[in-house]
Amino acid sequence: MRRKSLQKMHCPIARSLDRVGEWWSILILRDALHGYTRFEEFRESLGVAPNILAVRLARLVEAGFLEKRQYSAHPPRHEYVPTERGRDFRPVLLSLMAFGNRHFAPEGAMVHVVDTRTGEPADIGVFDRATGRPIAAPDYAMVPGPAANARIRKRYARRKVEAGAA
Amino acid sequence: MRRKSLQKMHCPIARSLDRVGEWWSILILRDALHGYTRFEEFRESLGVAPNILAVRLARLVEAGFLEKRQYSAHPPRHEYVPTERGRDFRPVLLSLMAFGNRHFAPEGAMVHVVDTRTGEPADIGVFDRATGRPIAAPDYAMVPGPAANARIRKRYARRKVEAGAA
Repeated sequence: MRRKSLQKMHCPIARSLDRVGEWWSILILRDALHGYTRFEEFRESLGVAPNILAVRLARLVEAGFLEKRQYSAHPPRHEYVPTERGRDFRPVLLSLMAFGNRHFAPEGAMVHVVDTRTGEPADIGVFDRATGRPIAAPDYAMVPGPAANARIRKRYARRKVEAGAA
Repeated sequence: MRRKSLQKMHCPIARSLDRVGEWWSILILRDALHGYTRFEEFRESLGVAPNILAVRLARLVEAGFLEKRQYSAHPPRHEYVPTERGRDFRPVLLSLMAFGNRHFAPEGAMVHVVDTRTGEPADIGVFDRATGRPIAAPDYAMVPGPAANARIRKRYARRKVEAGAA
């Protein structure tokens, strides 16, 4: 099913997608960060065929998002627990959730994040932890990093790039 | 290639993935938000087959992420411009970029967001625009929303859910 590997691409978005850029993988991560750990829990939650689930779980383990642990010796049983890398994926899921609620939930939010002190829904955006300010032009801009190659430098020289509204 | 539609799923993450949960679509959006508008620009940037690109662009237009505009009548030529919905996807891309730089850029960042006043790389996280605070437990929690169905309520009743570190 994979048409072309994105491994050779230098863009950090492309590289991340190459590891998890597939529905099931992202939804498995969603469930793993929700606290699900067992094959049957994922299968029941996702309604996915066992063979597909097994492949996706193995790939998430291989890519370092989940750790496979044996929790029972007789019979041998395993669980899947998010690694630090897997937990680091949470902001992507939170951003996707906020986007989905804004654009694809005409009936209102099914799930959302609330401020536990007030019960008010959070208005989720991206910000710079170093300054506390939202990532928005003109305060922030996307630019070639220290490891940028000629292609990326050319790409950014060609266009005025906005970091855009948080 | 689409194994199962996620349209019937109630989760906002699943619903968003159903519209853009595919490498090329997300990378096309990345390029569109970078300022690319023409078929040839996307094709050259992505190295994707024209037939695949045409299908993905049409789907992004249909799903309301891009608007197709005629910019030349003779010969007829079109460009693809992000809609408000498309621009709203930027925080997801920024979160993915930050994740990719942290986990899949051993040689250093190829592209990153910098504070334009200081030139320092941003440390991108998710926060609540209403309070200015990071989305992290125990201050924030993911809970069923007003439109949650029985299945979602059961899912959340079953597990103690952490909103987790921003």
